[in-house]
Amino acid sequence: MASAGDTGTMAMNPDLAKERRNARFHVEDLTNFIYHGPERVKRKRYIQNIALQEPVVKNSKPSAFRTREEEYELSLTKQLHVLRRQKELGITDEVDKFYYNEATSPNENNPLGLHFGMFIPTIEKHGTEEQKKKFLQPAKDLKIWGTYVQTELGHGTFIRGLETTATFDPKTQEFVMNTPTLSSTKYWPGNLGKTVNYCIIMAQLYTQGKCHGIHMFLCPLRDLSTHQSLPGVELGDIGPKFGYSGNDNGYLRLNNFRIPYDHMLMRYSKVLKDGTYLKPENTKLSYGSMVMIRAGIVGSVSRALAQACVIAIRYSAVRRQTEVSPGGPEAQIIDYQTQQYKLFPLLATAYAFYFAGQAVQSSFLRISKEIEAGNLQQMPVLHALSAGLKAFSSWGCSAGVEVCRMSCGGHGYSLASGLPKIYTNIVPACTYEGENSVMMLQTARYLFKCALRVQKGEKLPDLVSYLSMDLSKKSCMTSDVALGCLVEAYQHRAARLTKVATAAVQRYMNDGKSPTAAFNMASTQMTWAAKAHCHQYVVKVFVNTVTEAKIQDNTKAALTTLCKLYAVNGIMENLGEFLQDQFFNSDQVNILTSKLMTLLSDVRPDAVALVDAFDYHDSVLESCLGRYDGNVYYALYQYAKSSPLNEKDVLDSFHKYIKPMRDEQASSPLSAKL
Amino acid sequence: MASAGDTGTMAMNPDLAKERRNARFHVEDLTNFIYHGPERVKRKRYIQNIALQEPVVKNSKPSAFRTREEEYELSLTKQLHVLRRQKELGITDEVDKFYYNEATSPNENNPLGLHFGMFIPTIEKHGTEEQKKKFLQPAKDLKIWGTYVQTELGHGTFIRGLETTATFDPKTQEFVMNTPTLSSTKYWPGNLGKTVNYCIIMAQLYTQGKCHGIHMFLCPLRDLSTHQSLPGVELGDIGPKFGYSGNDNGYLRLNNFRIPYDHMLMRYSKVLKDGTYLKPENTKLSYGSMVMIRAGIVGSVSRALAQACVIAIRYSAVRRQTEVSPGGPEAQIIDYQTQQYKLFPLLATAYAFYFAGQAVQSSFLRISKEIEAGNLQQMPVLHALSAGLKAFSSWGCSAGVEVCRMSCGGHGYSLASGLPKIYTNIVPACTYEGENSVMMLQTARYLFKCALRVQKGEKLPDLVSYLSMDLSKKSCMTSDVALGCLVEAYQHRAARLTKVATAAVQRYMNDGKSPTAAFNMASTQMTWAAKAHCHQYVVKVFVNTVTEAKIQDNTKAALTTLCKLYAVNGIMENLGEFLQDQFFNSDQVNILTSKLMTLLSDVRPDAVALVDAFDYHDSVLESCLGRYDGNVYYALYQYAKSSPLNEKDVLDSFHKYIKPMRDEQASSPLSAKL
Repeated sequence: MASAGDTGTMAMNPDLAKERRNARFHVEDLTNFIYHGPERVKRKRYIQNIALQEPVVKNSKPSAFRTREEEYELSLTKQLHVLRRQKELGITDEVDKFYYNEATSPNENNPLGLHFGMFIPTIEKHGTEEQKKKFLQPAKDLKIWGTYVQTELGHGTFIRGLETTATFDPKTQEFVMNTPTLSSTKYWPGNLGKTVNYCIIMAQLYTQGKCHGIHMFLCPLRDLSTHQSLPGVELGDIGPKFGYSGNDNGYLRLNNFRIPYDHMLMRYSKVLKDGTYLKPENTKLSYGSMVMIRAGIVGSVSRALAQACVIAIRYSAVRRQTEVSPGGPEAQIIDYQTQQYKLFPLLATAYAFYFAGQAVQSSFLRISKEIEAGNLQQMPVLHALSAGLKAFSSWGCSAGVEVCRMSCGGHGYSLASGLPKIYTNIVPACTYEGENSVMMLQTARYLFKCALRVQKGEKLPDLVSYLSMDLSKKSCMTSDVALGCLVEAYQHRAARLTKVATAAVQRYMNDGKSPTAAFNMASTQMTWAAKAHCHQYVVKVFVNTVTEAKIQDNTKAALTTLCKLYAVNGIMENLGEFLQDQFFNSDQVNILTSKLMTLLSDVRPDAVALVDAFDYHDSVLESCLGRYDGNVYYALYQYAKSSPLNEKDVLDSFHKYIKPMRDEQASSPLSAKL
Repeated sequence: MASAGDTGTMAMNPDLAKERRNARFHVEDLTNFIYHGPERVKRKRYIQNIALQEPVVKNSKPSAFRTREEEYELSLTKQLHVLRRQKELGITDEVDKFYYNEATSPNENNPLGLHFGMFIPTIEKHGTEEQKKKFLQPAKDLKIWGTYVQTELGHGTFIRGLETTATFDPKTQEFVMNTPTLSSTKYWPGNLGKTVNYCIIMAQLYTQGKCHGIHMFLCPLRDLSTHQSLPGVELGDIGPKFGYSGNDNGYLRLNNFRIPYDHMLMRYSKVLKDGTYLKPENTKLSYGSMVMIRAGIVGSVSRALAQACVIAIRYSAVRRQTEVSPGGPEAQIIDYQTQQYKLFPLLATAYAFYFAGQAVQSSFLRISKEIEAGNLQQMPVLHALSAGLKAFSSWGCSAGVEVCRMSCGGHGYSLASGLPKIYTNIVPACTYEGENSVMMLQTARYLFKCALRVQKGEKLPDLVSYLSMDLSKKSCMTSDVALGCLVEAYQHRAARLTKVATAAVQRYMNDGKSPTAAFNMASTQMTWAAKAHCHQYVVKVFVNTVTEAKIQDNTKAALTTLCKLYAVNGIMENLGEFLQDQFFNSDQVNILTSKLMTLLSDVRPDAVALVDAFDYHDSVLESCLGRYDGNVYYALYQYAKSSPLNEKDVLDSFHKYIKPMRDEQASSPLSAKL
């Protein structure tokens, strides 16, 4: 796929050039705001320019044409090279590393990601001092290369159900590891199949004949020098997936495989040499990292949607279809309202989730300090929010990427568009780190508890205090469509849905159902409430961000338009939930309907600038349609010509299959004349 | 991937066995209804059993493990074999062929599809008698093998914009073919890249210095014996796509390529030997085949969604997660209401669109007879309906397949689930045969014309006569949730949205906008109306089908529940559109909300039987999760073990990359002890 570098000499598509001239704000001002200041933007570009010059990046085969084996090898080569180069260049800052990686492996698997992101941190957090001393340095040197092994064929999000066992044998001072059933086969861990030689494994601990629940163990898998799988260890790749082709997600079966005493991570729980089990003091400590990981997902899915919007909106400015008046020029498809209605709310969504992800992270950092000071009160509300928001954003962004793809017509279906890669790389976020429906139910359960407290007149934490608002009040919405009235509307909706769903649970319980059964019978309604809660948070954060942003007036105007579009479109898409109690009257609905259309026209002149502001390099987008210079047909033609199937004009299959078949057919007397 | 045959000796998963015992109707009764009687079901099974025994089908590598080249070769081999076998077996009926093909190439490209489905029929329809005599027999013998070449890099649904030219040269009695610009490069036609040696090409006809618009030409592309591309013809594969990997969708550039006089299809338009152009008499004749093709798409997307539902619902009955009470067994995930809410409305949608597709086809066959008798009146209403319905159903079914996939958790992401293949094979239906948004706008334009006629008090054709209903009437909905009240609600919504959107267009025109601009400014609202129109049609057909079905009472009860679920869920998902004019009061909304939950429980005991009734063979589903016998973990484990990456325990890349990298690292003094 052509990168910006390849086409530096081509003129910019005139429609795109015009869009850029006509934008009503300075792109750079918004870029600086998104990335927290001009210094950081400069640094990001500096880092990415270095990364893009790496020969292993610059000269590699386009991702669309790689086989799975090539994809795997390349991801490995690139990451080992990156590791070396980052050392040489002294790149140690996590943000720098992120941008370096984004440029070298856009929307691709990083075979060292779980090693540095989960394996090492887990040892650091759950290992004893001796274990850290013994294992961390070899891990950092890649002498041992690990992953995190939790899910099994039959068990995912419900961790207590895992079946793998670790039975302590005091005679030999070893743990005997087993996957005793077919369904206990470990399945899915990244890089497990072929790459790693070690892992952290989650297993049911048995000692002195008793099960003590899930614990973590360090488990060798392959010989450290030959890389051969160890006796008692059966493992391999799980085969191709929808995307993630460079990742050797693996399966693992253990058959009476013995690991030494010091391979159980014992900072909290302990097994004494005689087999006595000692409980940990505090079990809630891992809450925090889950919040951070989920907030990180909100950010990364927003970035995926942003990339898809860059591609679809630039292409919509270049693409022309259907003459406006007979014989006249064909219109840019971005001028069709139906196209705007598809794309602009998604552009607003990308911004909205980007800001929401950042807001959760800052809340977390603030609350973390309280926790260090021993105050755990704010953690549950943030935990519930981050669970729901992870689900809400990953569903919304994944579906949004597909809408962007389809908005590019047939060309969106070609891998040349870059959009299928973005989609298949981001859609697993709906499942990993907590399956979305389960996440939403966690948020729902927290809201249920809050609603019970509201019934008792208790005070709620800030993030949910709106739940006790007066629900008889009608909307303050006027033709101004004020930001405050929008936030209020979302809070009203979430508070009302929470109240109604909670009442449904209580009604079922009063009818004699068990709490579990009653909650299940109202779980769809509870989920509606949880989504509404997340939605109001995103709207509120967007409004606050825009209001407080220190940016030029024109930039603020463009961002405010997007913010209103996000909020108004969300109301129209969920209108029934705002109308059931006549919170809006019909005049207000008419105002909002007509405002939605006005907002689409308001975004129109700034649309290209609003995607340019994300500052994605062509090499990150890897898209013939989303090129900065808009030479899309040139790029598609080049892409086609380089298809591996075109290496020969006549394929061997012609001689092998078609020709013999044809000779077999009765020869036609007319065919000679053709 | 294991087929039913491989596992004939395995016991059925006990949960699935229990589901089947507890179903409240006879599966066979519903299967017979779906496929129009026991004789046809028997015939379908007979045909498919033969097909599945073909060695080329039985012994081929699982689709998930094939490279693109293998996929292409296999599709070719299979289809050439199928062609031969169908002749030997005397399979000539189109329905028989369809089922034979479904078994041999499930959700796969058929490299003869466009040849037999477009190339030959176009010659038959648009060729003169001499042309038919000359070209049809060689085409049937595969001496010439063709495709249909229309779309260009820069032009899709808007056919008048095509740029390829055919200029008549009376001196040599030839047409000179050119793709004069980059954007006129033909792009996307199936099997064009490597397979065919001929095509029907759409080009602007020039003669005597004048352009006469788009016409069809027969165009040779490759030498009939050597298969080499002809001088003046540049063509090839367009590279990998999101799916369709077996298809060599191609590009084509023509440079002063000359074709003989008799290669323009001249049944209607004619160019005389001296270059004089003669216009066709009637230009509306191709309407009919578009209606049939689009009705066919409604059917095929419904079948794709049905397959996805089979997989997801069987898996949801087998999969267990989270203990219901502490220490108790984990629940079947199909017992969670949130899972039911994801899947059961989609199951209802699959049935709904299946019936709708059949209804459009029968309407078409009825109306075709009127047309033959010279009465074209009913064609526009059916044409508008089929366009919108193609869009409405392909959007709904594609999105639904992804919901089914994600409802299977992580395993849905593995190609082993079979779901990604179904998705990537069906989602192009949103784009091909008329891009969905353009299709919806066609329906919208028709509704706009109807609304103007309503304003004038004119009578409308049956399919849209509801548009003149009295909109001041409120809903008749009571706690019975009668089918009639559901249909009335959908008609009210569509009629109201059409009226409101039409008024918006008229308002803009009164404000001085051109008709085109005014329509564009209200096109989002017009699209809402068009969707509502399609939705009411689908609900009405489902209600009629259930009401008139000659099936056992229990079967009718199960199908009626699904029908109500489809209608009630659709109201809840679009509630705002039913509430804006207080058509429903709040008691009625409460009734519908609670009915939705009751309907989910009502479907629950029959869910597995309702998917079994589609009668898909395991080999058609190609899914480890959707197996009839429910041995999903066994199948996933087998799938993983057969992953090509597992051919060696230690990959070469270990020696090539990992080992050298490690040797480079500072050796750790502790590592020897590990």
